[in-house]
Amino acid sequence: MLTDLDSPEQGEPVAAGPVGLAAVFEPRRVALVGASDQPGKMGELFWRNLSSFPGEVIPVTASAATVDGRPAYPTLSDVDGEIDLAVVVVPAPAVPGVLRDAAAKGVRAAVVISGGFAETGPEGARLQDEMIAAAHDGGVRVVGPNCFGIQNCDLPLNASMAAGEPLGGGGITLATQSGAYGMAIYALGLDERTRFAKVYAAGNKADIADAEVLRYLRADPASRTLCFFLESLPDGRAFYEEARLTTPHKPVIVAKTGRSAAGARAALSHTGALAGRGAVGRAAFAQAGIIEARTGLEMMDVARALDAQPPPAGPRVAVITNSGGTGVELADLLAEEGLEVPELSAALQRELRACLPAFASARNPVDMTPVWTRFAELYPMLVERLARSGEVDAVVPVLLQRSAVDEQVAIGVRDAVARLRADGVPVPVYVCWVAPRAARPNADLLAEAGVPCFDWPERSARALGHAARYGRARFEVRPPRPAPPRPAGLPLLAPGVLDPGAGGALLGAFDIPTVESVICETADGAAAAAVGLGFPVVAKALHPELVHKSDRGGVRVGLVDHGDVQAAASELLDLAPGGRVLVQRQASGIEVVVGGIRDPQFGPAVMVGLGGVLVEVLGDVAFALAPLRADEARRLVERLQGFAALTGARGREAVDLDALARVVCAVGDLLVAVPEVAELDLNPVLATAAGCVAVDWRVMVSGT
Amino acid sequence: MLTDLDSPEQGEPVAAGPVGLAAVFEPRRVALVGASDQPGKMGELFWRNLSSFPGEVIPVTASAATVDGRPAYPTLSDVDGEIDLAVVVVPAPAVPGVLRDAAAKGVRAAVVISGGFAETGPEGARLQDEMIAAAHDGGVRVVGPNCFGIQNCDLPLNASMAAGEPLGGGGITLATQSGAYGMAIYALGLDERTRFAKVYAAGNKADIADAEVLRYLRADPASRTLCFFLESLPDGRAFYEEARLTTPHKPVIVAKTGRSAAGARAALSHTGALAGRGAVGRAAFAQAGIIEARTGLEMMDVARALDAQPPPAGPRVAVITNSGGTGVELADLLAEEGLEVPELSAALQRELRACLPAFASARNPVDMTPVWTRFAELYPMLVERLARSGEVDAVVPVLLQRSAVDEQVAIGVRDAVARLRADGVPVPVYVCWVAPRAARPNADLLAEAGVPCFDWPERSARALGHAARYGRARFEVRPPRPAPPRPAGLPLLAPGVLDPGAGGALLGAFDIPTVESVICETADGAAAAAVGLGFPVVAKALHPELVHKSDRGGVRVGLVDHGDVQAAASELLDLAPGGRVLVQRQASGIEVVVGGIRDPQFGPAVMVGLGGVLVEVLGDVAFALAPLRADEARRLVERLQGFAALTGARGREAVDLDALARVVCAVGDLLVAVPEVAELDLNPVLATAAGCVAVDWRVMVSGT
Repeated sequence: MLTDLDSPEQGEPVAAGPVGLAAVFEPRRVALVGASDQPGKMGELFWRNLSSFPGEVIPVTASAATVDGRPAYPTLSDVDGEIDLAVVVVPAPAVPGVLRDAAAKGVRAAVVISGGFAETGPEGARLQDEMIAAAHDGGVRVVGPNCFGIQNCDLPLNASMAAGEPLGGGGITLATQSGAYGMAIYALGLDERTRFAKVYAAGNKADIADAEVLRYLRADPASRTLCFFLESLPDGRAFYEEARLTTPHKPVIVAKTGRSAAGARAALSHTGALAGRGAVGRAAFAQAGIIEARTGLEMMDVARALDAQPPPAGPRVAVITNSGGTGVELADLLAEEGLEVPELSAALQRELRACLPAFASARNPVDMTPVWTRFAELYPMLVERLARSGEVDAVVPVLLQRSAVDEQVAIGVRDAVARLRADGVPVPVYVCWVAPRAARPNADLLAEAGVPCFDWPERSARALGHAARYGRARFEVRPPRPAPPRPAGLPLLAPGVLDPGAGGALLGAFDIPTVESVICETADGAAAAAVGLGFPVVAKALHPELVHKSDRGGVRVGLVDHGDVQAAASELLDLAPGGRVLVQRQASGIEVVVGGIRDPQFGPAVMVGLGGVLVEVLGDVAFALAPLRADEARRLVERLQGFAALTGARGREAVDLDALARVVCAVGDLLVAVPEVAELDLNPVLATAAGCVAVDWRVMVSGT
Repeated sequence: MLTDLDSPEQGEPVAAGPVGLAAVFEPRRVALVGASDQPGKMGELFWRNLSSFPGEVIPVTASAATVDGRPAYPTLSDVDGEIDLAVVVVPAPAVPGVLRDAAAKGVRAAVVISGGFAETGPEGARLQDEMIAAAHDGGVRVVGPNCFGIQNCDLPLNASMAAGEPLGGGGITLATQSGAYGMAIYALGLDERTRFAKVYAAGNKADIADAEVLRYLRADPASRTLCFFLESLPDGRAFYEEARLTTPHKPVIVAKTGRSAAGARAALSHTGALAGRGAVGRAAFAQAGIIEARTGLEMMDVARALDAQPPPAGPRVAVITNSGGTGVELADLLAEEGLEVPELSAALQRELRACLPAFASARNPVDMTPVWTRFAELYPMLVERLARSGEVDAVVPVLLQRSAVDEQVAIGVRDAVARLRADGVPVPVYVCWVAPRAARPNADLLAEAGVPCFDWPERSARALGHAARYGRARFEVRPPRPAPPRPAGLPLLAPGVLDPGAGGALLGAFDIPTVESVICETADGAAAAAVGLGFPVVAKALHPELVHKSDRGGVRVGLVDHGDVQAAASELLDLAPGGRVLVQRQASGIEVVVGGIRDPQFGPAVMVGLGGVLVEVLGDVAFALAPLRADEARRLVERLQGFAALTGARGREAVDLDALARVVCAVGDLLVAVPEVAELDLNPVLATAAGCVAVDWRVMVSGT
């Protein structure tokens, strides 16, 4: 990649070098600040690791005149010629000075390995700020600090603590915030013969945020499968937006730790109480087509599945086994992942039975029984026939028992998969590997050829489940709908909770239907308004202190005549002195809650849930970021546990789901278009076959 | 164990030998029928495997005069002296003859390895029946057929296909129905240095059912931790009853495959439709304190956790790590298992900080940071201090990074745990192992010393979750309540659905409250009855064809006077000509569904759920086997997703949970005491703070 660039003349300035993350991953000339040739020193480890870099590596150190026989420069400023990337391993207090030198020198980027910054407390945070300020003064972009470094495995460029020359030739790029765990994930990945494209340790993320990394990798052809191991995601919205553009083309797999600590946000209102950042974040990932892995291992497993094989185009899996028990266990686990192990067609079963022993089953799982002597013949044959059958979307041979994990079977399966790939058959093959350690070299043989092997049915099913979800998501994630404009003439709203009338008008501006209502000051007025609306009506107490009207008897339903309304309104006015009464035509339908919030990390989001016990006791709600497309709103509603209540379960009326989806979209649009609206709560919306109407709403405007 | 029995004189009859499974696991003299010394033959593999048996092994074969230099007998009948156990490896068609010989000879038990029986179809099933009949004629108990054999690792007795001399000295006994997968689980267990007490391959289970195996193992002191890998459990009830007696003393871990195929039972009525065998079976396991593992690997992991370490006495876990990211991931996973990673007390944190490096965290996870040179000192010290602190119930050191998985750290942790065990500290230690393959010998070093090592946080958290659940369950599972007697004078009920009056009387006999009701033939009669009951009342159409009355408008509520009732009753009688009208005092409360069913595998069981959308749309129901103890009924209700709806969530009334538990117990008692009742449905029961009352019920009596 650098062949025509890798030997710039020393001292001769080069016109246009790489900038930003390109300077990090594809530098022409690298300086190692803190270089050393003394074993045991970090500077020596990096010097050794950088030795395979095809470009020039310049040792910078004030402690020695030479490093490994090469003349060393005391500072970056002393180096002749342009430097694209500085790798910094000096102690923290010296780092700001190094970055000042780098800025003065015009270095494009620095990878700061050194720890002792924000992760150690306020003093370290100040040092970090000083370092970043120095870097930015000269346009130096910074990776880290407190990280284990970066690799571009294809160059190769190993500017990391992980020893050895990277293998290259793989498509998996690992970006990790966790240092030690990220290194372990990487090292154990190599153990399983995983090939990486790039490795990026984000450390304290003092300069470059995750969304910028994702943007770079989206455009990087070598990075075909993107893994992010994250501890925090402060730029959640930008990451979401980048991911939406990425996932139709390449998988983005995120393992986000700290889930259990999430959700502690204080409850201000109904919708707010049900939110919690964790839920919004997970919803945003799903909406962007991101594969959310629970752990680092799961992240790597699905990356291995997707990088070397086509993603499954559907949920149908063929299982090939020599052990009924293992096949059934795997089928159970696949079902729990939402996948199917369908019975094969009669014709295909006939065809397979002709090749199988007498008591074998060709139904699926295809169980050849323990015919040890025929494993090397049957496994590859079955893999190929099933993949070419058109009846399944993925094939999982279970390699179990000594004769099934021997070299001949592994070679046979490897070659069968190679033929499938050569012929463009779009059906992936993953091996479920249940074998003693001694057989490991045969799993490696498969993995090296791009046939992923997952130990035990658990890992196989989990990886396949994620792969299949990605196979679907990459077609579902489409360009976002443009955000709608602010309604013409809408003035800046004043902070506080909007009056129901003003709130209703705002909703109306976004075509959100609200039930016909009149706000009244007196009981007589209420009764007169009711006559105008038509009976039966509902009367509700209006007072700023009544957040949940129904909790304190502030709602009277089924008022059928003038006298009813007058009496009820009079009591309601007594209930909250100084308040008013809202009279509404009484509507009916299935209660749905639709809300809008602004998440601190992910921005405007909508929430939908079924009313009553489902939302209140079970918290059965679903979130999505706004603005939403109509198809996204529809899928959001379908995700509810109680969705069947909207489609006519047990004699209920099937509601107009498109109308409900329109309300959900409109709430999102309102949040996007009117940024001073902090929170919005339609509770309930009554849904019927004829449409949806909000009968109670609350619009909260934030202070400026 | 057999030291004084292992050399009976040939030909001299022994007075009282072992019988049943004792003859299988502790035989004095074993015959191998089908013995051979020709490599590649099954008879040779078993001959070799049996060679370590300290008692006598007698070769039986018609194909050779000697086996391995020992004189062979043509048939069992030709052998002199008593035989406790025959191991049979001849082809299926010859097996019935062998068992006839065994019966004639007085052999106590046979392990039939041979396949070709019921697993192959109707012809094989006939052969299997013939074999079992022959065996039973002479009181021969049979393991298998179609199994990989048995082991008593302590003797050792290896009458199985798994080559090599068993290690012995472990407490894990593995009973497996799956042959090949069971063998793989066993072999991979040995790979991880797991020590077994006994191995039992059940094969086709033609004679000995799982409950009998469990009963034997319950009394076997060598078997401390019992694992069952099951594909079917036809004697579910007996297994449940044995398990209830076992789990307070030793863990029973079951992996039951075929879950995804379960639940296909046809829906006959409301309760029936919501049941499905899978749900009842899982409920029975939980009620008996059985640990249900999803997979064979999970089963072995929790067995490893429980066999060598005391079970956790509570949910509090200390995590020790050198990597923040791994600690957070593990904490997330532990939270998902219902466990806690509590912040340590200020005093303990102070004490720990005094020993830890500057930027370490002593909060929990205790993160020592990557101070490689101090790992061998800090890990053992922290393990011991935390286990002795009284602040946690389990300790998980995360061994990650090269210097944390080296021999010195492993030895240090091993010795720290040995000190804890020697001092009787009841806090288990499990290692979370994240290391390249090359470090494996150090994990083995720990495992061999009884400190289980689980690869990656996933497996660690899962095993610990199960272990903690067992730690609680072993105190919760108490002797069952004796089944109540049939009510004195109750005649045998006639098949069909009981009349509401008769049904109400039957419920009354078990103190199940029902709402005051009168059955009427005419509208006038209904109106008169209503006056007697007091208004408001409810009127319901009664007709055998109306199973769900409310589905077809057959229920009228809120009838407030004589005229109301007369009009409603008249319409209801028109709705279902030939029917009657049930008039009830109108009750209110939270709707609960309580049902009783007879599960084909598990017998009488009760179901409880919250009424309305929770049960109808979400299927939020819980099952338990009858009879139940009051505390079990209470926990059953607490397991409902929507339980909070019963305890006063969001302004609701908190109901009398003890009264509800009494109804649940009584429904179970009725099922047990009146065996002709096939199914019982109280839907709804109205629950209030003042008690519970059934307002609609349906009792179905089975034909004889």
